[in-house]
Amino acid sequence: MRTYQYERRLHWSECDPAGIVFFPNYTRWMVEGLNEMFLSLGIDPNAQQEDGGRGGLPVVQLAMKFFEAPTLHSIVRHEILVEKIGGKSLAFTHRFWCGQTLLVEASETRVWAVHAPGGKPAMQAIAVPESVRGLLNANAEGP
Amino acid sequence: MRTYQYERRLHWSECDPAGIVFFPNYTRWMVEGLNEMFLSLGIDPNAQQEDGGRGGLPVVQLAMKFFEAPTLHSIVRHEILVEKIGGKSLAFTHRFWCGQTLLVEASETRVWAVHAPGGKPAMQAIAVPESVRGLLNANAEGP
Amino acid sequence: MRTYQYERRLHWSECDPAGIVFFPNYTRWMVEGLNEMFLSLGIDPNAQQEDGGRGGLPVVQLAMKFFEAPTLHSIVRHEILVEKIGGKSLAFTHRFWCGQTLLVEASETRVWAVHAPGGKPAMQAIAVPESVRGLLNANAEGP
Amino acid sequence: MRTYQYERRLHWSECDPAGIVFFPNYTRWMVEGLNEMFLSLGIDPNAQQEDGGRGGLPVVQLAMKFFEAPTLHSIVRHEILVEKIGGKSLAFTHRFWCGQTLLVEASETRVWAVHAPGGKPAMQAIAVPESVRGLLNANAEGP
Repeated sequence: MRTYQYERRLHWSECDPAGIVFFPNYTRWMVEGLNEMFLSLGIDPNAQQEDGGRGGLPVVQLAMKFFEAPTLHSIVRHEILVEKIGGKSLAFTHRFWCGQTLLVEASETRVWAVHAPGGKPAMQAIAVPESVRGLLNANAEGP
Repeated sequence: MRTYQYERRLHWSECDPAGIVFFPNYTRWMVEGLNEMFLSLGIDPNAQQEDGGRGGLPVVQLAMKFFEAPTLHSIVRHEILVEKIGGKSLAFTHRFWCGQTLLVEASETRVWAVHAPGGKPAMQAIAVPESVRGLLNANAEGP
Repeated sequence: MRTYQYERRLHWSECDPAGIVFFPNYTRWMVEGLNEMFLSLGIDPNAQQEDGGRGGLPVVQLAMKFFEAPTLHSIVRHEILVEKIGGKSLAFTHRFWCGQTLLVEASETRVWAVHAPGGKPAMQAIAVPESVRGLLNANAEGP
Repeated sequence: MRTYQYERRLHWSECDPAGIVFFPNYTRWMVEGLNEMFLSLGIDPNAQQEDGGRGGLPVVQLAMKFFEAPTLHSIVRHEILVEKIGGKSLAFTHRFWCGQTLLVEASETRVWAVHAPGGKPAMQAIAVPESVRGLLNANAEGP
């Protein structure tokens, strides 16, 4: 299934007083990387809907293991693997690397959803669209 | 005019590898403090509107001077002063203190605004409501 | 064993374009809440050491389940339970609530560690100090 | 004098409930962009010193004007101009653009500094090194 990867600098803003990554940034990177993967495929999972609602990809569960911590200004490679495409849910594995060193491994489940318009922020899970399903099943790797 | 103050811990998440505050956090604190001041007065400047839009208080200009930097786990006192209530705009001074030491002084101008509903995020400045004007003019100090 | 809880506002800065919490903030809150729990017991887990090093409490694993998402300006109650005190490690459960609604449940394992001085950010796990062990075993609840 | 620019995606994590940029992110971007400019010139302003201290570039004043706000997933161009190289200080102008639309203009003054080792986070301003001065004076544009 689809994989995607890119590199990012570990910034001053993302390090703690020990000079290493502040770990909550990994969860933010998971959101950003996933959105970049979808955008690279021509899909905006957070697009505005015609009725004023907005698409979303809320997380329902998450598990992370931490092996090594990168230091300030390191280049971190973020690797995303589509693991499973369910009816309304999607499972991903994320790995973060510094060179050949595995920093973090994470697995998460998200649901394809819409946020209703008109100030009602309640989300509703809906079926993963066929077009999305097709693109995530494809065997190609992102840029 | 109205003043407001509260204390906050300088957290691990808010410090940089030098062990002091990462300065962009001050601008976030300015937003949080301002909203707390309004909420303490019974006003939610970001409230959902009946038509699905949302209130806002966008910043139009900001100036900051930095004198001292607090260290991890310090208690920072954030002081807000309403400086001017214009037709559609509001000017505030913010001061951040550690004990008797002034850390930062900031002045900013914001406008009272609404974000249109239906996925159009464009903002429109509107007149500061009379009720808000009255509360900000009052001479009392917040909790 | 020790429990700790406190309440926090869900701020504008912590919400996403759907008007609900941006979930990585939970992991930041877990760090802040844990540090507040320790500080309330007179322990600073990130204290500077005499040799210029610094204490730390790095996470080694984390699992989270997400049930409901709070909306802007909600009051969130963060509950921390000490689950296990190992030789060098500590396990905690975190629960986040809005009123009687469980938002998120998380479990994490951390290690008691020191960051070496002199610009070497490598961490070393060390034995959980007896004084810390005693305080975490105590049956009292935080303020 | 030296200029530098790059493009960045406006991420979900960086937008507020109105679906536009949460403005404190600009100040974080200013830090990241400045560090990227220096790193592209072979200079790490936050490098560890041999004595265990660390270089820094603390801000002393900042002024910002906000014209337009970008929406989720926009591409923002960040332009940095070196305005003045003083004895111990540096002045920069930052402009953020979406296409031909100016979003924000900011000016800031920073000082070249070192953080002392051994857990003393106090900073000391020092002379801008000649090598840095030379690189910033050069008329070339970054990648």
